[in-house]
Amino acid sequence: MANDLPYAVDEGRGPEPLVFKPLGIDTWQEHVIYLHPDCTVCRAEGFAAQARVQVQIGDRTIIATLNLVGSPLLETAEASLSSSAAQALAARAGDIVGVSHAPALESVRALRAKIYGRRLESAQIESIVQDISAGRYADVYISAFLAACADGRMNVRETVDLTRAMVNSGERLVWDKAIIADKHCVGGLPGNRTSPIVVAIAAAGGLVLPKTSSRAITSPAGTADTMETLTCVALEAAELRHVVERVGASLVWGGALNLSPADDILIRVERALDIDSDAQLVASILSKKIAAGSTHILIDVPVGPTAKIREDRDLERLETAMRHVAQVFGLHILMVRTDGAQPVGKGIGPALEARDVLAVLERSVSAPPDLRERSVMLAGALLEFCGAAPQGQGERTAGQLLDSGAAWRKFQAICEAQGGLRIPGEAIFRRDIVAPHAGKVTAIDNRHIARTAKLAGAPRRNVAGIEMHVRVNDEVRAGQPLFTIHAQASGELDYSASYALAHPAICIAPY
Amino acid sequence: MANDLPYAVDEGRGPEPLVFKPLGIDTWQEHVIYLHPDCTVCRAEGFAAQARVQVQIGDRTIIATLNLVGSPLLETAEASLSSSAAQALAARAGDIVGVSHAPALESVRALRAKIYGRRLESAQIESIVQDISAGRYADVYISAFLAACADGRMNVRETVDLTRAMVNSGERLVWDKAIIADKHCVGGLPGNRTSPIVVAIAAAGGLVLPKTSSRAITSPAGTADTMETLTCVALEAAELRHVVERVGASLVWGGALNLSPADDILIRVERALDIDSDAQLVASILSKKIAAGSTHILIDVPVGPTAKIREDRDLERLETAMRHVAQVFGLHILMVRTDGAQPVGKGIGPALEARDVLAVLERSVSAPPDLRERSVMLAGALLEFCGAAPQGQGERTAGQLLDSGAAWRKFQAICEAQGGLRIPGEAIFRRDIVAPHAGKVTAIDNRHIARTAKLAGAPRRNVAGIEMHVRVNDEVRAGQPLFTIHAQASGELDYSASYALAHPAICIAPY
Repeated sequence: MANDLPYAVDEGRGPEPLVFKPLGIDTWQEHVIYLHPDCTVCRAEGFAAQARVQVQIGDRTIIATLNLVGSPLLETAEASLSSSAAQALAARAGDIVGVSHAPALESVRALRAKIYGRRLESAQIESIVQDISAGRYADVYISAFLAACADGRMNVRETVDLTRAMVNSGERLVWDKAIIADKHCVGGLPGNRTSPIVVAIAAAGGLVLPKTSSRAITSPAGTADTMETLTCVALEAAELRHVVERVGASLVWGGALNLSPADDILIRVERALDIDSDAQLVASILSKKIAAGSTHILIDVPVGPTAKIREDRDLERLETAMRHVAQVFGLHILMVRTDGAQPVGKGIGPALEARDVLAVLERSVSAPPDLRERSVMLAGALLEFCGAAPQGQGERTAGQLLDSGAAWRKFQAICEAQGGLRIPGEAIFRRDIVAPHAGKVTAIDNRHIARTAKLAGAPRRNVAGIEMHVRVNDEVRAGQPLFTIHAQASGELDYSASYALAHPAICIAPY
Repeated sequence: MANDLPYAVDEGRGPEPLVFKPLGIDTWQEHVIYLHPDCTVCRAEGFAAQARVQVQIGDRTIIATLNLVGSPLLETAEASLSSSAAQALAARAGDIVGVSHAPALESVRALRAKIYGRRLESAQIESIVQDISAGRYADVYISAFLAACADGRMNVRETVDLTRAMVNSGERLVWDKAIIADKHCVGGLPGNRTSPIVVAIAAAGGLVLPKTSSRAITSPAGTADTMETLTCVALEAAELRHVVERVGASLVWGGALNLSPADDILIRVERALDIDSDAQLVASILSKKIAAGSTHILIDVPVGPTAKIREDRDLERLETAMRHVAQVFGLHILMVRTDGAQPVGKGIGPALEARDVLAVLERSVSAPPDLRERSVMLAGALLEFCGAAPQGQGERTAGQLLDSGAAWRKFQAICEAQGGLRIPGEAIFRRDIVAPHAGKVTAIDNRHIARTAKLAGAPRRNVAGIEMHVRVNDEVRAGQPLFTIHAQASGELDYSASYALAHPAICIAPY
């Protein structure tokens, strides 16, 4: 019988079919396929470990990295997939798996040209972004692309092209209103969680804000991470539309909406590298906003020696690029410079920041005054920018909307519409980091604080992070707690505390 | 009994010991550790998939990427390792495996500074290279480092520091001779396999040449790949010394000698990206040569529109950097510009190039004249440069050493000393790519030719590659074979041929 014949690679027949066998290996978001080294497709195609291959089940196709694994885990006619790959292919045990050479990526020539400092044409940028959003780029390519584009090595025209390509990589929301307001912070300042408060105030003031947020890139929490401790954020487009029609605003995670999906892939590698360049920042922010259908966007830019934007010069450069790109797409943007000298509020980390947000909205006596002031100022600027408050009256209007409880009622309505308001959890483990000597706090290093919070588990563990006890100009005595680390695992607590002790984030000038 | 108690993360005890269970998963050179998601170390330390962790067995330590895999493959008290990780740790079934957080890498701050265009201090470069050579960098970091340093973004001082750091990362050979000659080609020209011939001629002329070569970076073959089809190349330092003492020269792979091991790791990622920047090129070449103890080095630089160096301007820039760095380390270098317009010889790929080398040394009538001429010219220049031939007489002397059979006898002696001369194999599958119409060959694209050879399996499959049948200015008729693809797997033959047909490498001007 034909089936009994050994597979002969030179007869031009296809290799024997591979059957999916789940092994349950979790490689996070990296797609991996596991094959037996002696399977016919490896022999016929000449595949070796770490090759990039195309994998097909039914009409779904992905590019995956090949790992080889022999009997008894896999037989020659079996294939396994990492959890992410199995999910992307909707694979079920027994499915037939097709494996072939990954198509040669023409866009890698453009990537190399960029590494060597060339300007890229629109079509080259489009091809790179298409390959990235289709999952055809290995992480080393994405990493090289990000590094090659950093430090001003992308000009405004390239940034416009990158933005457009990223918008084209996903879905777009369309609204039947003349003004769709939005608010964004470029980040870099731990605890600066004004968005939920600004959205609640501005919506209470009559603006329409279908706010979509991202998870953390390089910080201990993104607005989506914080909101997730309070309500459901993974809404689909129809659900989002329903929420906005009902209550005039939303506070959801953008990831479930497939807006600028290339951005999400770039962000994953940016997070590993802990970098975030101007061009990427502009394209990332504006592509998401364009795809979300926003027309008027307030952008909060904290400036400080250890913030993401360190000097006014850097802000001007970013603002120039942002304005140019916004203009091409007909967006109205208002950039607001804020003080980036130290963290905002008390909590740093998703749940800890959520507690600060609730305290401000509830007008609790324990609410951090700096978070309240910032939120009111930004909400006022947005109300004026969108014509919902007279010039010079925005901040006062915003303050009234907060003080009257209108913003708090609006926030509750948003959370109810998204699936219900819940109270954030608390961490099991805590450790105080104390002042080594008495003196006056002269500076706080945002980067060390953020890193300490991340080592404690934020944002992955939503209750982990830091609770700040001091601010710049405070006087402290020796042994007084400067901040408390919150962690959900003892190893993470130890690791974070060791880092904090080795890298003092709080400068104290002795008397 | 204590063993029956559940593991309590808050008691400060260490997690239960993990026992190594081999699963035989081959991830090539990427170290991966597989743990059960519910194992105590994952719970206590808060590890998630793709975390970078430190793995210890006995006194050996590596950094690996974490993949999670549940029962029945692994129980909570078991750990498995990828083949490369198991090898690096000399792991045996039942060994106790320690897993902890990877130390925070201080050098990543320097890496980020470079991505943002800053100059790096010597100590920063040293720390990056140390972390790379210790295997502490994930591939995305290495990739970002290479992209950040490309396109002249490293100045000469940084290149000197990079070179020194790379030398310091490994072993150094010391010879008791005043002149240790060496020869290197910057590459980029398929089939340009002059090194074995130049070494044989120069050694026959009395020079001492402990030649160490690399495997291919972005090309279809490196000298080490080619030599490996002819003799043993993976010699250790003591064996190399023995060979050089016996016959005055060697032709070995540098990888087994641990010379500039950071370079080998960088090269692995450069290969994936298919890039090779000036600073990396200088540091890579000179660090290897300094570590090998060479004093006089001839560097062959092919220049042509599709070679690695495309214009004389690029050559001048490279030469300036190379001279500056060489001077700091007291090296004598002679850079020789050669024609890089088209491939050299007939064969492209390890075994096919080895056949050309043998033909030239044996003075066969089928020997490619261009390979012979180039080798004699370069050997002559090296003999003069090292004082082994009077000025103006080098090329004549070299020709005589080749024609008399002295070079061929020397080459046989070198191979015998390294373990015996063998004859290269031949590929199973072949396909001709023919001229679509009659005309005159006006240009040959080295990059398309190299890519076609690589898609056919070179250098991984040493018999794979291309056999060229035409050169620039040849006249061809329609249907005449331009080159033949050699492959060891039908899939690779098909893939290579499809690429060749879609990307014609040989320009033919019709009459």
